[in-house]
Amino acid sequence: MHQENEVKLTGLISKIYPPMITPAGVKVARIVLEHSSEQMEGGALRYVKCRIYCVYVAAEINQELLDHHVSVTGFLSVNTQKKLVLHITNLKNLD
Amino acid sequence: MHQENEVKLTGLISKIYPPMITPAGVKVARIVLEHSSEQMEGGALRYVKCRIYCVYVAAEINQELLDHHVSVTGFLSVNTQKKLVLHITNLKNLD
Repeated sequence: MHQENEVKLTGLISKIYPPMITPAGVKVARIVLEHSSEQMEGGALRYVKCRIYCVYVAAEINQELLDHHVSVTGFLSVNTQKKLVLHITNLKNLD
Repeated sequence: MHQENEVKLTGLISKIYPPMITPAGVKVARIVLEHSSEQMEGGALRYVKCRIYCVYVAAEINQELLDHHVSVTGFLSVNTQKKLVLHITNLKNLD
């Protein structure tokens, strides 16, 4: 069966952590994304906010992107603490 | 600026909670979705697993869907405990 896991999210980069290096030597960028929008739900418009920790494997996120609006695509996974993490596969600066 | 918040996720319904009724009298279905898939990340295939609490406003989820594979679309938000929640806007039974 084809399994799907696809996220498209816009938001502000509120934090950029120092990049991590995996044991295999791969750079992992890590940020916090703050999202807010209005979404239709059950026939009513709803104000939505979320704050999500994101990793971007084999990529760098320039410190200049702090407080910038970005659009990311990626997939959801959990970290070792079983917390949801957004794995970014594409990031676009909107500012 | 156009804000985006879109999730497409397949998974198994591992729990169906009793529906909640909002103060406005709207039924809210609540489930846990267990997802697993393989995703491309930084040029390598990665095995991905996640377990996410989902709400489906103004909808019902039949108890017969327990342990069934479904495909959902929706958006991410946080609950009052600041935990990420997937708000389902569409659900399709895949079995």
